[in-house]
Amino acid sequence: MAVTPPEPRPAAVRKADVLAKLTAPVADAWVATATPDGPYLVPLTLAWLRDHIVLATDGASRTAAGLTATGTVRLALGTTRDVVMIDARLVETFPVRDAPPWVADGYADGTDWDPRKIGGSYVYLVLRPERIQAWREENEIKGRTLMRDGVWLG
Amino acid sequence: MAVTPPEPRPAAVRKADVLAKLTAPVADAWVATATPDGPYLVPLTLAWLRDHIVLATDGASRTAAGLTATGTVRLALGTTRDVVMIDARLVETFPVRDAPPWVADGYADGTDWDPRKIGGSYVYLVLRPERIQAWREENEIKGRTLMRDGVWLG
Repeated sequence: MAVTPPEPRPAAVRKADVLAKLTAPVADAWVATATPDGPYLVPLTLAWLRDHIVLATDGASRTAAGLTATGTVRLALGTTRDVVMIDARLVETFPVRDAPPWVADGYADGTDWDPRKIGGSYVYLVLRPERIQAWREENEIKGRTLMRDGVWLG
Repeated sequence: MAVTPPEPRPAAVRKADVLAKLTAPVADAWVATATPDGPYLVPLTLAWLRDHIVLATDGASRTAAGLTATGTVRLALGTTRDVVMIDARLVETFPVRDAPPWVADGYADGTDWDPRKIGGSYVYLVLRPERIQAWREENEIKGRTLMRDGVWLG
């Protein structure tokens, strides 16, 4: 017997669900970057600060290298059947020991760790979302785009 | 109060956990590919057949284009805190209407859908894992590599 999927969520509900995921006490994302060696993918914890996604990782990592080289990243939050997909651009990179308080304190407050305790070559990567999509089942593919060119639709 | 993480799993347990995820009734993966336009990422349902990962998607999709161009893909299964990470290579592409039974029947039996019902430009992408890693907490980073150069270790 086929299961009837729930009614598709209206855009306003999807946007609220996206923001709930981004501002969860601990929000992890699957972070995909492209390097000359091919695709890279790793889970990272993000903070949502001033309408930007802030990641923290080793400046020598493939994620940081790929992001710096191409300027683009694609991130997924949620599960494979409750997807938030975000295409974003790198707008700023700060060494952890030399980041403004809104980034460094904001990241520590908005996640479950503080990269300043690691220091060394760790950096904050500040990303501006350009496109945000959210869908669960097939019947939510239509209407999945909630942000385009950095602007929330509707 | 800090939570003490569980003891790290031995390699044999991690391998069993990886195979359980790959052979689950419905196994979804986050599939990262690289294209000249940058990174791409999408959730897809896989079947584990003859020690290969089989995906099905539109041959005109960015996933198929990126895979065909670079030959490489990185897939994640599980959650961001119970990760299976697989680097794989494309070894064969079959149009859905012209695939051998082990691929077409195997995919339909091993997932919750049958791309032959869509047909058209859909293809099966047959991927050979080259490296498989599995970790949960920080204390499982050591020992996370279970397969290297296509060979299970230990």
